[in-house]
Amino acid sequence: MSTSVFKVKVKAGREAEFESVLTALVAASNANEPGIRFYQGFRSDTPGEYVMLESFQDKAALEAHTASEHFLAHTPKVADCLDGPPEIQHLTDI
Amino acid sequence: MSTSVFKVKVKAGREAEFESVLTALVAASNANEPGIRFYQGFRSDTPGEYVMLESFQDKAALEAHTASEHFLAHTPKVADCLDGPPEIQHLTDI
Repeated sequence: MSTSVFKVKVKAGREAEFESVLTALVAASNANEPGIRFYQGFRSDTPGEYVMLESFQDKAALEAHTASEHFLAHTPKVADCLDGPPEIQHLTDI
Repeated sequence: MSTSVFKVKVKAGREAEFESVLTALVAASNANEPGIRFYQGFRSDTPGEYVMLESFQDKAALEAHTASEHFLAHTPKVADCLDGPPEIQHLTDI
């Protein structure tokens, strides 16, 4: 299994654009990827900060995700809204 | 929807006990609670640190969880393994 928590900060004034693109990516991913256990984006309690929870059945499912048409189409737009690199925590199933 | 990330530190030497009890709680919860979107426990890359990702369909599902027999049976055992209070981050769906 492959699970990560991404914490990101979004550039001031770009929040609505970020949420729109991320929502599209999340919807397309969940609709098309049977290897997803959980894949959702969230606002944190800190303004401008967002958290993405991602869990895939296995490494192949993660690779299918990052190679997908929707991922490749949306991720550059998501990245362009970010204020700095994401803080990524990798997790291992108990 | 109700989503939280719990980060906890486990007392040295209690890791196996903690993992065993948490695994039982996770299994019972997922088997019996249709309101769960995602409910899993993980090891982080830091020794003795664990992360629980919890997402419920709504507040009623979270309340059903915390009132469940399995939650009430296992949570005191989980809590007894912890080295300090959990760090809890509440998240809001985009």
